[in-house]
Order: sequence, then C-alpha cells, then structure tokens
Amino acid sequence: PTYRIASIPGDGIGVEVLPQGEIVLRAAAERYGFTLRFDRFEFASCDYYLAHGRMLPEDWKEQIGAHDALFFGAVGWPQTVPDHVSLWGSLVQFRREFDQYVSLRPVKLMPGVDAPLKTARDIDFVIVRENTEGEYSQVGGRMFSGTEREIVTQETVMTRVGVDRILRYAFELATRRGTPHVTSATKSNGISITMPYWDERAAAMAAEHPDVAFDKFHIDNLAAQFVLRPDHFDVVVASNLFGDILSDLGPALSGTIGIAPSANINPERRFPSLFEPVHGSAPDIAGKGIANPVGQIWAASMLLDHLGERDAAAAVLRAVEEVLADPAVRTPDLGGTATTETCGRAIADAVR
Amino acid sequence: PTYRIASIPGDGIGVEVLPQGEIVLRAAAERYGFTLRFDRFEFASCDYYLAHGRMLPEDWKEQIGAHDALFFGAVGWPQTVPDHVSLWGSLVQFRREFDQYVSLRPVKLMPGVDAPLKTARDIDFVIVRENTEGEYSQVGGRMFSGTEREIVTQETVMTRVGVDRILRYAFELATRRGTPHVTSATKSNGISITMPYWDERAAAMAAEHPDVAFDKFHIDNLAAQFVLRPDHFDVVVASNLFGDILSDLGPALSGTIGIAPSANINPERRFPSLFEPVHGSAPDIAGKGIANPVGQIWAASMLLDHLGERDAAAAVLRAVEEVLADPAVRTPDLGGTATTETCGRAIADAVR
Ligand SMILES: CC(C)[C@H](C(=O)O)[C@@H](O)C(=O)O
Ligand SMILES: CC(C)[C@H](C(=O)O)[C@@H](O)C(=O)O
Repeated sequence: PTYRIASIPGDGIGVEVLPQGEIVLRAAAERYGFTLRFDRFEFASCDYYLAHGRMLPEDWKEQIGAHDALFFGAVGWPQTVPDHVSLWGSLVQFRREFDQYVSLRPVKLMPGVDAPLKTARDIDFVIVRENTEGEYSQVGGRMFSGTEREIVTQETVMTRVGVDRILRYAFELATRRGTPHVTSATKSNGISITMPYWDERAAAMAAEHPDVAFDKFHIDNLAAQFVLRPDHFDVVVASNLFGDILSDLGPALSGTIGIAPSANINPERRFPSLFEPVHGSAPDIAGKGIANPVGQIWAASMLLDHLGERDAAAAVLRAVEEVLADPAVRTPDLGGTATTETCGRAIADAVR
Repeated sequence: PTYRIASIPGDGIGVEVLPQGEIVLRAAAERYGFTLRFDRFEFASCDYYLAHGRMLPEDWKEQIGAHDALFFGAVGWPQTVPDHVSLWGSLVQFRREFDQYVSLRPVKLMPGVDAPLKTARDIDFVIVRENTEGEYSQVGGRMFSGTEREIVTQETVMTRVGVDRILRYAFELATRRGTPHVTSATKSNGISITMPYWDERAAAMAAEHPDVAFDKFHIDNLAAQFVLRPDHFDVVVASNLFGDILSDLGPALSGTIGIAPSANINPERRFPSLFEPVHGSAPDIAGKGIANPVGQIWAASMLLDHLGERDAAAAVLRAVEEVLADPAVRTPDLGGTATTETCGRAIADAVR
C-alpha cells in the first residue's frame, strides 16, 4: 500500500526533529514493504503567521484533509506570537475540525532514561484523553466587568456522544493491548453535575465490557496514585482537562517528558489523525542541532500503528529502545553528546 | 488567653487520632501559658447520620459558630453512607457556611519519611487553594436526558471578590513566611474564559506586591514541575479544583500523604476555621489503635498558628519532626510498631 503523509514541521526544534522522524519512517517502509509519500507544509508555524496574519491558509482542509496522517513537529514561538494564538490556531483547530477526539499518550519507562520516581519499576500504560469537548468549551462570559461585582463563568459541556465514544475507545484499546484494565479519572465528589454523568457512562461502558477490569479514582487521588503505584495502570481514560494534566504528570514521573509522543486520533478515519512529540518548539536550543529526535520518532511509531502497519510500528519502538540503551548516541538532554542527526540515523539503522 | 476549641472526631480513625492532637495541644498550652477549652461534638459523623438522617443538627451553627477553632478528625464510612452525603454534608458545609475560603496545605519533607521522589531534597512549600467557588459551583444541568442527544453542563464560577481574596492571602502569606515567591496555577491556554480572568487578577495582585516574586504555570506543566523541581516552590495559589489536585500530588511526592494536615481558614475570623489531617477515616485500620496521629498533630500546629500562638505552633512542629526521626515511636505505616497513643504521647512529651 501507499500512504500519504502530510509533514508539518512547525517551529523551532520541530523543524529539526521532523526530518529524523521521516528518515525512520522511510526505513520502516523499506523493510516492511509499503510506500510513503511525504508532502511538506509550512503553515501552522509562527513564521507563517508573521507573513500571513493567520496560522493556517483558507483552504487548509483541502490541502491536508485527504492525507492518511499528519506528522507534526512542534508549534509556538512566544517571543513573537502569543501561545494562545499559535496553539489554538493550529493544533486545537486540527483536533476540532478533524474530529480527533482521542488524544493518546503512552507512559512507559525507557532504557537510558532516569525516572524521577524511586518506585519506578514496571510503568507501561496509556492515557486516553477526550480531546474535543468538556472543560475546553469556550462557552461562558463575564458580567459586571471591571467592577467589584465582576463574575466570570465558563461551562464544562459533556455530551452523550462525546463521552461514550472516548470511553468505548478506551475499553476497546484495553482489549486490543491485551491488558484488559481501564481506570477512569473522575471528580464526582467535587464537580457535582458533569463528573457524576461521566461516572454513569463509564459504569455503563464497563457493564458492556465484562472482560475488562474497571476502576475509577478521583483526580486528586489519581495524581497521588500515579506517584505511589504507577504500575497499577494500563489504560487511563479522562476528560479533556484531566487527561491534559495526567498526560504531563505521567511522562514527568517516568522521565520521558522530553521524548514522549502524542497521537490525536480520529478513529473512524474520516479525517487524518495527527502524530507529534509532546515537547514544544524549545526556543532555547532551537537551531543548534542537538534536539532529541526520539519524541518525533516515537510519534512515528504511533503513526504506523494507526495506519495498521503494526510490525513496522513495533520495530520502530524497539529501535528507539535499543538506541536509547546506547550512551554513545544519546543527545545532551540525556547526558550524551550526540546530535539530532546522529541519534536519528542510529534509530533508522536499527530499523533496517 | 483562653481559646474554645470544638473537637469533632468524626468517623473511623478520626476518633483515635483526635485525642492525640488534644493531648499535644494541652501540652503546648501548659508550656506557653494559655488556656484551651475543648467541647466535643459527635455530629459530622456517619454514626450521627445513621441515627438522625442528616450529618449535622439543625442548630449546628449555634453550637460551634462561636468557637475559636474547629479541630476535626476524619469523616466518611462508605460502607454505610455514600461519600457525597457524608463529605458534602459536613466538611463542604463548614467551608461554605463558615466562609473558609482558604484551604492551606503544607508540602514538606519530614524526617523518617521516605519521599518517592529521587530528587527530593529541599521541599518546603504551601498550597493555597480557593475553597468556596470556581469549579465546585453546583450550577448546571442536564438536557435530553437518557437519549443519544444528552448534554450535561456545569459552570465554573469565578467572582472578583473570590479570586482577589485568595490571591491576596497568598501574597501576604508569602511575605509573612519570608519566602516572597508566589506561583499561580493556571490553564489559560485551554480553559479560555475563566482562567485568563484568573491570570489577569493574579497579574494585578503581583503588581500590588512588587517585593514578591511571581510566576505562573499551566496546571499540566505545573504538575510536571512538582515532580521535576519541587524545590522551586514557596507559595502556590490555585483555584478550587487545581488546588485540590495539587494538594494531593504535593504530599504524595514528599511522602507525607498519610501525615499531612489541612487548614480551612476564614482569615477575617468572622467564623471559626477548621483544622484536620488530610487522611480519611481509613476503615481498614480503624479500631486497631495503630493509626498515625501525626496528621492530626501537625493540624494542631496549624491551629495554634491561626490562633496567633506562633511559638507554640513552631514547638509542636519541631516536636513532630523530632519524634518522626526516632524509629522507636513510629507507627506501622512508617515501618514502626508504635501505637497511636505511644506516638502521640511522645510528641506531647517533646513539646513539654
Ligand atoms: C471530598 C471532596 C469534596 C474534597 C474536595 O475535593 O474538596 C476533598 O478531596 C478535599 O480535598 O477535602
Ligand atoms: C496548548 C494547549 C491547548 C494544549 C492542551 O491543553 O490541550 C496542550 O497542553 C496539549 O496538551 O496539547
């Protein structure tokens, strides 16, 4: 088969790590007998914004809407464009307009990476985050502006469709992973209307999947349990906000915040899904050729998995682990002296 | 001076640890020359609920509203009373009706306590949580119930009064602590209406306090920073929900989740403030006499601080640290064999 990939480097180190992801993808394609066609797009970057006054062209959906996947670097250059402009104008747009309602983030110990947690032994789980509604509604407003009586409100909006489809995805993923255990993040003891609804739907979904073990924790306790027994978790499903928090906390605990990937998925494939490293554009090290390309390459593995190229996906992840175990090809952030290119090439070689 | 304390043991181990807190308070009173009068109340417990069908008597405000402080054990017995009934019917009631708009939780490394974090060296900060509004509004509802079109909403409500007073408290506390550094928890890049408002008021408060260093982090990144550089923080101020999450995450990271205290404060002293351990009623070890009383006693130290008995407060905290350093008087949760009473008595002796 032939797959069309839209490559969108974005800003800063995005421009440096994305090509390494492409090299590894090409290596995987060669070895596993499929074809990749990359088209490169310069929009969704702050340079584009400064030239055009917007993050995306008018016809962005036509330009990338028919691709099989979006391979994204990083966006943001706060020195020139406020984050809410660059992020909402690109990533959040894609999520909503392409209905990428699943955000997927693996939390996994990796060789050569020092986890901050003493008890880190057997961490290997996935966070499934609702990516389109919930706490990020943009519905609300302000009253009595600028006075002592000022009131500001914002609604959390949960829909049956939105809640059920993310829960279903989590239960099906748990089954597929062979780790049939789903943990739901809630706060129904404090957020007294939307969260009990979330619990209700989660309980219904659990009843539909009797082979999947199910438990739930309030988000405060869940954050603590991530610290106290990270090996308890397999698939963690959460609302937009809770998923956002857990998606940073998990990788911080496993020491992978600089190398973890993120997938934004439209499971029905009506629209392309997006794969990117979790790290940002890192203005402080941009242009030096020392950025760690592992996040981008790990994202490439998720991209392959989404295309159904399971063996190739597994091979890329194995290659990442192999190379991380070798001090000679680690980038400075992991205590090594390798460049972005050396590290990327080593992983591509390990795939071949 | 004479202070009137309302002792409310609540449920489970609350009944066991509260008396140890009282013994230590008495020891402090004796040594520092003030008088404490304790009145004990059996309401705000699940036993009370089972007997009366409600958590609090009709006239609870008259009964405890004139006391100088509420000294609380723990509430909850999920086997017989759902948590949302027992917690909302007691603690959350107190917070709202007594306008305890500040929740204060110290995060501090303690001797004899193994912190899960490898990098834990110099952790000593306080979380200041807004305790009455924000995400816990109870405003919202459900539409198209039970159908595929079901929609559930809940509002976050922030008021100028509510936001400003918690921010002001945080800045003043930072000044008082001699660590003039406030960190604000936000998520204005995702929660697009209420959180930018929070940022706006925080910036205004920071401008009013030029001697206090100020920074802010999005809650996802902040949770990660708690892991990656916990020594960065001095006073962390957060909305109701974010404060709730950070208040569990912080103590989990410093290993103190079983022994940390929580203060729910009405700074103007129009109403009594409440002091309690963070831990719950712990049905699994209740009645065995082995519960760790340190959370209750650390809460006693905060109570004394609130009464203005600063030296006594410091002495109690010092006594806690001294006794925790001695393996002979540690309770089983910290790897020792001491009983609740032995540990409590040792701390009281250290105060005298
Ligand atoms: C019981 C619940 C409402 C409460 C909260 O979320 O405020 C608890 O977690 C706490 O922190 O005291
Ligand atoms: C930039 C922001 C809107 C975003 C989010 O909160 O979703 C980011 O934190 C992420 O997780 O991709």
